[in-house]
Amino acid sequence: MSNVFNFSAGPAMIPSEVLAQAQAEFTNWQDQHTSVMEVSHRGKLFMELASQSVQDFRKLYRIPDNYQILFLQGGARGQFAAIPMNLLKENGKALYLTSGHWSATAAKEARLFGEIDEINILEQNDELKVGKLDFSDIAEQYDYVHYCPNETISGVEIFDVPNVGDAVLVADMSSNILSREIDISKFGLIYAGAQKNLGPAGITLVIVREDLIGHARKSTPTIWNYEVQKNADSMINTPPTFAWYLCALVFKYLLSIGGLPEVQKRNQAKAELLYQYLDQSDFYRNPVAKQNRSLMNVTFTTGNDELNAKFVAEATAAGLHALKGHKVLGGMRASIYNAMPIQGVEALICFMKKFAEENR
Amino acid sequence: MSNVFNFSAGPAMIPSEVLAQAQAEFTNWQDQHTSVMEVSHRGKLFMELASQSVQDFRKLYRIPDNYQILFLQGGARGQFAAIPMNLLKENGKALYLTSGHWSATAAKEARLFGEIDEINILEQNDELKVGKLDFSDIAEQYDYVHYCPNETISGVEIFDVPNVGDAVLVADMSSNILSREIDISKFGLIYAGAQKNLGPAGITLVIVREDLIGHARKSTPTIWNYEVQKNADSMINTPPTFAWYLCALVFKYLLSIGGLPEVQKRNQAKAELLYQYLDQSDFYRNPVAKQNRSLMNVTFTTGNDELNAKFVAEATAAGLHALKGHKVLGGMRASIYNAMPIQGVEALICFMKKFAEENR
Repeated sequence: MSNVFNFSAGPAMIPSEVLAQAQAEFTNWQDQHTSVMEVSHRGKLFMELASQSVQDFRKLYRIPDNYQILFLQGGARGQFAAIPMNLLKENGKALYLTSGHWSATAAKEARLFGEIDEINILEQNDELKVGKLDFSDIAEQYDYVHYCPNETISGVEIFDVPNVGDAVLVADMSSNILSREIDISKFGLIYAGAQKNLGPAGITLVIVREDLIGHARKSTPTIWNYEVQKNADSMINTPPTFAWYLCALVFKYLLSIGGLPEVQKRNQAKAELLYQYLDQSDFYRNPVAKQNRSLMNVTFTTGNDELNAKFVAEATAAGLHALKGHKVLGGMRASIYNAMPIQGVEALICFMKKFAEENR
Repeated sequence: MSNVFNFSAGPAMIPSEVLAQAQAEFTNWQDQHTSVMEVSHRGKLFMELASQSVQDFRKLYRIPDNYQILFLQGGARGQFAAIPMNLLKENGKALYLTSGHWSATAAKEARLFGEIDEINILEQNDELKVGKLDFSDIAEQYDYVHYCPNETISGVEIFDVPNVGDAVLVADMSSNILSREIDISKFGLIYAGAQKNLGPAGITLVIVREDLIGHARKSTPTIWNYEVQKNADSMINTPPTFAWYLCALVFKYLLSIGGLPEVQKRNQAKAELLYQYLDQSDFYRNPVAKQNRSLMNVTFTTGNDELNAKFVAEATAAGLHALKGHKVLGGMRASIYNAMPIQGVEALICFMKKFAEENR
């Protein structure tokens, strides 16, 4: 392993074990003397890979039988459009809970397709905090309630699942999918772009409850019609086969290390280490309330733009890449998804200590 | 090089030189000690790659300045929907020229979004042949005229560009993009899924004339709004970075061997070899009229389903992969895209001769 750690918010790290296997069999997959990206998605070998990947993903999350798993194209942003097209009834409306940039962007896109109510659940006082999550009194009037349980830009994570009574809950888990155990049965639909915890950019995973399939409006593009894609095993058109293959390897890898209980343990340990350091530091500050601190994206600042820029430049030179915060927020952001080893967090803290000493 | 040749119709072969480079730098791209698929699309290095790939693609086709090049997600099938959403006016209509499965499927999808007229230009008598291509007398009434210059399933290619007068001509070049020189200025929009001649599945190229951008209907998903993507350099959301990277390598490779004049020469030589053999054979038959024989997909049959199945099985065992024809047509199909070396065609003919001798 090199001394470089990549804290990119996405596209992000992929487990080194997965990359090593993909590199080794890059031009000779399954003894075919061709790359996996050169074979037909309708051939026996790729169909087996696809089917196995669905089984493995089901196993990781213990997904109930009445949920379908789709592998689509277009990213989470594509689903921002596909979800209202599939779930929003004629003259229906949906509720979007907003807690930052991505949930607000999802709401904006949904407005292209129908009536959307929006409730801001982020309280911004001394610290960023998510307010009450009980919407059971109002949720019934909506075709669905949408939220984003992890906002990558601010590093705000929502650990409690919103109470929407019997209404349909939809979650954009792009940045925290497979990061910890969740109870799938609380959700109607979960979706995620792959480029943080699943694989490379260019493939999108959708977990959708059976009864929500089959109601797409007429003008839904076929590749995003959940019913069509369910019936075609996500192959109504050529899927992004190489990205799918890498996701399949990631699922196998996560199962091999002990599944989500172990993944969650590791993620909690990494985040705890970093937040503990931040809390005892008088040099850096994290702006998020303890109960909403993301396990995936840890934001921090020195409180001084110039010093932040110096930090990022020197960190990069020291092999700690992509620590610059999102332009909306400034400061720094360490994205520590599943594939980031604890050694990366240790190296970061070590650098932070040194930088603080030299610049206080 | 192994003795295996892969005749898959798509996903298909990628130049071995490109795969070798991608494998070599798979975990250490540009000395970053990370994979190209792990870095931010907004980082300096990836932005440079993206920009260079557009320049190289422009150079290959000598694309006029008043055309934009977009890298999108969703495949050609996604564009089947995106094109009417962007180009079809309220109460407007479009004309679809159909010559086989893919052009007909494009027309069907477009009907989800407005009024579509359809003209079948394929004549099916003794042989498959495309009829007259002058629509200048009727084209004016349409927002655009769509056709598919290469039908992969039947192996029918349309070499003359339809005459649509001043109307907007739209072409699905998924299976013959970059296979020969064309005059881009005759087209309003050209699009292609990558998985035949550009790179791996999961990225879609759109070449669109400036004046056609900016008229998308309100309910166009943002990721397919040409104006939004033009202004965002195709990065309104995370693009499929690894697929884009491979396309960029393919463009560089094609330029290195002499650009499209050389590519076209090689493709003509390969196709000529195979069609010449078919024409002098009394054992195999190709169903396409000479003027419409595809340079990319060569279909043939023994005229006997059982014998065809035997051919495919024995060819596979001999290292000639994926020769089974599309289920709609049966028989055999050899897809000989840019990345297929002439040695593959020679090996195929050699096997065909032997099989004919053994089974006549």
